[in-house]
Amino acid sequence: MPSRRKFIQSSAIALSIPSLLPISGAAKNIGPDKNYKKAFLKLGMAGYTFVNYSIDQTIAMMNRVAIDNLSVKEFHLPLDSSQEKINEVLAKFKGGGINVYAVGVIYMKSQAEVDRAFDYAKRVGVELIVGVPTYDLLNYTEKKVKSYNIRIAIHNHGPEDKLYPGPKDVYDRIHKMDKRVGLCLDIGHAFRAGADLEKVVTDYAPRIFDLHMKDVTGARADAKAIEIGRGAIDFNAFIAALRKIGYNGSCSIEFEKDMKDSLPGIAESAGYLRGVMS
Amino acid sequence: MPSRRKFIQSSAIALSIPSLLPISGAAKNIGPDKNYKKAFLKLGMAGYTFVNYSIDQTIAMMNRVAIDNLSVKEFHLPLDSSQEKINEVLAKFKGGGINVYAVGVIYMKSQAEVDRAFDYAKRVGVELIVGVPTYDLLNYTEKKVKSYNIRIAIHNHGPEDKLYPGPKDVYDRIHKMDKRVGLCLDIGHAFRAGADLEKVVTDYAPRIFDLHMKDVTGARADAKAIEIGRGAIDFNAFIAALRKIGYNGSCSIEFEKDMKDSLPGIAESAGYLRGVMS
Repeated sequence: MPSRRKFIQSSAIALSIPSLLPISGAAKNIGPDKNYKKAFLKLGMAGYTFVNYSIDQTIAMMNRVAIDNLSVKEFHLPLDSSQEKINEVLAKFKGGGINVYAVGVIYMKSQAEVDRAFDYAKRVGVELIVGVPTYDLLNYTEKKVKSYNIRIAIHNHGPEDKLYPGPKDVYDRIHKMDKRVGLCLDIGHAFRAGADLEKVVTDYAPRIFDLHMKDVTGARADAKAIEIGRGAIDFNAFIAALRKIGYNGSCSIEFEKDMKDSLPGIAESAGYLRGVMS
Repeated sequence: MPSRRKFIQSSAIALSIPSLLPISGAAKNIGPDKNYKKAFLKLGMAGYTFVNYSIDQTIAMMNRVAIDNLSVKEFHLPLDSSQEKINEVLAKFKGGGINVYAVGVIYMKSQAEVDRAFDYAKRVGVELIVGVPTYDLLNYTEKKVKSYNIRIAIHNHGPEDKLYPGPKDVYDRIHKMDKRVGLCLDIGHAFRAGADLEKVVTDYAPRIFDLHMKDVTGARADAKAIEIGRGAIDFNAFIAALRKIGYNGSCSIEFEKDMKDSLPGIAESAGYLRGVMS
């Protein structure tokens, strides 16, 4: 038997060689089919998943798993991009069959950064910002939501986060605000922070604008990201709760394991979600 | 925007580069988790899926998707292998965490080939042959089943096949034979041949020894292989039928699309099945 190191190397190298053909092949084979249509949730991808990939690679990977909605991150489309640059990037995504439905996650620590985020979202032409404004900027953010008529989904970030460790930390601060201020529920971080995901969906229903779908190895702070379906989150119960409230936003996979070779994990996660929804 | 050709090339090349790390990473992250335990069907792989891959690559891919049961094909373990060679290959699979639960599909056109198949299965140490003996060899095959106490699961191969286009073509010929003569139901080929999969499961229950799980684009002869969940087969109904009969064999994915870059499709298919079973 080969040594472990040699085994991994030879496998990896040879696995990588034939990647050329099927990306085009896959794109051609994707078409309407009954199971996609049956899924009541719109699948999407959270842009951070592709932090190690170019726009072209992102498009190829999304085509491969037949997911066409993206919340774009600034590494693919910088916040200070010219309108020309924005148009060029959007055209590239559109040419690859990808719909940019939101921008973010965008972190905002000053009024100037809030201004920039809303100006950016308007120029990108999306109706939703996934963002993290500091507490003192929430009122200012609400004003911008009203003046731009662009919704903001504030993202919870897990027990180690000082601002919004769980969805309650968002909801308690925004539930009396304009109805266009809401939550991007990151279910992995929320679960690690001890949240009851079904209760969150039920209790915060009108404020849930976006979802970051992932799985984690346990309901504890140091739990790790894992392929959806392999971890500790009960997706049947969660999807059932979403069905019950009539959730109609995006259900965006954010895959944070194997981030330099994430296609198999994204594919398995997408398959699992479609299976649960079917 | 880059040309389509250029786009595909650059994506494919860059996607292939980082394949090294995560294969080892994935193996380490795989462990017992509740969703795997909940799945009532044992997932496996039909060896033909890996016709373009070495044993090392096959192990790496199966580890990546956390599937550990394999029906081994002769390109990985030739039918005329010495016992030494058999032991070496089995040790390699075992070292990679893979259990060889069956051999096949093995085609048999003479008594000598039936003899060889049973001798091979005995030397490999499996209790199941997935095989295709010609009609005139069925009685001889039954005798071998009795003398070796090794079961045979005869594989149906779709409407273009002259021997066993659908499961009925197997069942009608074997249902009065020894109870160790049965069927490897290839659901994609059966569906293309017009079979009602739930009815097949119900009617042929005691004779279904193995499954080749796949999806196809329609219930017609020229339908193509596609990722499980994207095609025309109703997996909820099929899995429910298996649950009802208490099926306890393997549920082995045979992925026949993108066969030179099949990991993402295998992963999506495995995810979908686990999602449906969850």
